[in-house]
Amino acid sequence: MIDGRREGDGMGADLQVVAGQGRRPTIADVARVAGVSKGTASKALNGRGELTDETRRRVLEAAEELDFRPSSLARSLVSGRTGIVGVLTNDLEGRFVLPILMGAEDALGAGRVSVILTDARGDAVREAQQLRTLLERQIDGLIVVGGPRNDARPSLGRDLPVPVVYAYAPSEDPRDLSIVPDNVMAGRLLAEHLWELGRRRIGFVGGDPTYGASRARESGAAAALAERGAELLGAGVTAGDWTERWGRAATARLLAAHRPDAIIAASDMLARAALDVLRDLGRRVPEDVAVAGHDDWSVIVTNTRPELTSVDARLESLGRRAAAAIFAALAGEPIGEGVEYRPVRLAIRGSTVPDNWASGTHEP
Amino acid sequence: MIDGRREGDGMGADLQVVAGQGRRPTIADVARVAGVSKGTASKALNGRGELTDETRRRVLEAAEELDFRPSSLARSLVSGRTGIVGVLTNDLEGRFVLPILMGAEDALGAGRVSVILTDARGDAVREAQQLRTLLERQIDGLIVVGGPRNDARPSLGRDLPVPVVYAYAPSEDPRDLSIVPDNVMAGRLLAEHLWELGRRRIGFVGGDPTYGASRARESGAAAALAERGAELLGAGVTAGDWTERWGRAATARLLAAHRPDAIIAASDMLARAALDVLRDLGRRVPEDVAVAGHDDWSVIVTNTRPELTSVDARLESLGRRAAAAIFAALAGEPIGEGVEYRPVRLAIRGSTVPDNWASGTHEP
Repeated sequence: MIDGRREGDGMGADLQVVAGQGRRPTIADVARVAGVSKGTASKALNGRGELTDETRRRVLEAAEELDFRPSSLARSLVSGRTGIVGVLTNDLEGRFVLPILMGAEDALGAGRVSVILTDARGDAVREAQQLRTLLERQIDGLIVVGGPRNDARPSLGRDLPVPVVYAYAPSEDPRDLSIVPDNVMAGRLLAEHLWELGRRRIGFVGGDPTYGASRARESGAAAALAERGAELLGAGVTAGDWTERWGRAATARLLAAHRPDAIIAASDMLARAALDVLRDLGRRVPEDVAVAGHDDWSVIVTNTRPELTSVDARLESLGRRAAAAIFAALAGEPIGEGVEYRPVRLAIRGSTVPDNWASGTHEP
Repeated sequence: MIDGRREGDGMGADLQVVAGQGRRPTIADVARVAGVSKGTASKALNGRGELTDETRRRVLEAAEELDFRPSSLARSLVSGRTGIVGVLTNDLEGRFVLPILMGAEDALGAGRVSVILTDARGDAVREAQQLRTLLERQIDGLIVVGGPRNDARPSLGRDLPVPVVYAYAPSEDPRDLSIVPDNVMAGRLLAEHLWELGRRRIGFVGGDPTYGASRARESGAAAALAERGAELLGAGVTAGDWTERWGRAATARLLAAHRPDAIIAASDMLARAALDVLRDLGRRVPEDVAVAGHDDWSVIVTNTRPELTSVDARLESLGRRAAAAIFAALAGEPIGEGVEYRPVRLAIRGSTVPDNWASGTHEP
């Protein structure tokens, strides 16, 4: 039996909480049993005020006898903490925000942090309103999750009364703390993986080049190849988007211009588009051309033919880190500033390493 | 300048809220200016207690003069409402829960409802813990969003202290209120659409038949065809799942066994699998075989070749309806019981109606 509905009778201490069955003891009950005023009972329970040890003991015993438990609301008024973190996002699809939310929820152990999620849907006016509402709700801190764009986003400013962390996409203000996946590392990991498999003609299918993620993934792959004396084929495209239609066109162009033996795409959807074009052309994956994406989005990577090698941004870990930074700040530690790049993880599947590896080895 | 951080000094009324700059007036300040006790000031502001008109007037004037605004927390103790709705889900991907959350957020107008989202990740122990935490946070009500399975789910019971609405998937207990998309109507809409386009050999590719959604979509399509003297080809499959691998196998089997001129798939991903098989076989879509899915999931339906006709479950509307039911219940209306089926909407694209419609008309 879990109870929680209260009947507030004012801003005073005598909150009555009435459960589905029966009535929860109030501080008035505790005061009556202890033979003190409600104010005294409140002071004793909160460890405040000038009370004799005897009075405090009587109140605590009465509270224990009655199984008195103040509501979260009442407790938060005492502690100055609500245990609620606000998450502000524009990620309509939830692909990025939900794992981050789950990580934040788990940051201090299950059940200790709750997350109010608000989605501004790309509307700045709505975002300002949601921010106001979150602050009125006395959130302990705020996680701003960029997306679907993961470029730097405008800072919410330096005068918010709660700790703020930018996750997934960084804030434009370097004095803010931003915690983002290391997209340069992601591109580098894929290029190194393909290189180690013997691929020497590695091409790139980018998304919208105005997105930081696409550029960072490209530059990481290009840097890894440059260190090995090779170049990333098809890099430097100055216009594109994140649709599969674009991915198919970019792949066709890359194949015609550069005859790559491997393709790194800036997202899993673009990689899927590359797989579709290769299939249409009768090219074998990975034997003729290996393909890899970014994001490790399960609905794509496990459904393609073959399954898709990708890079997991470890968003739950990122959410845990963001929430931990907020609570550390509340505990008095400096929240830090600048962009913190979090390591990502390679997820190898059949699009780069065939199941029948021994017979499928690529000869460069 | 938005302020919100408080320095609670107890369960009493004298909440101090200190903003980024300057200190927010407290009820103690109001009492001091009005020349009354804090208790009297509280009673006057909350419209309670036996006070003279003169006293009440003095307090209200003092509050106005000081621009006193009680925090959400303090106000919620007064009103007995937090304006926070809990959303409990297991929808790891967020495809279903996020639109429902956005609808709930908007139910009473932007900024008036906040949603605490918790994802139990399929773990019953975690769900119980999250429910406890939500109730401790004095949520006004609870929306339980089924998924990824959208079969009936176990009821949380009848003794919760807040109104509960089950959304997307119904509760097993018919005394609970469940608000779900009308999946029978969805299947029916697609069958009628294809029939009106002249298709007479309409087949079905189902998902996991233990899911209510797959069965309901199938039965709606079958009923619409039965009324026209036709049958749904390939119906009644007793084993399957929601992967594209299965979708490809089921499509190949359907094509071989029934030579359909249209395929209704139980999800957009299964429809995509059908498109891939038809492409591999050199069959034209929609000229040779029309294809339609369910869910109208944007990342699928706008990326396939051709774009995919589907059915939109209108989940935001469903979220608005669920939140409205909660607040109506709080206002004293009965919350209702049983399953409420919400209308869905056909979204027609190139996989059933080609762009060059005049030349592409299907001749049955």
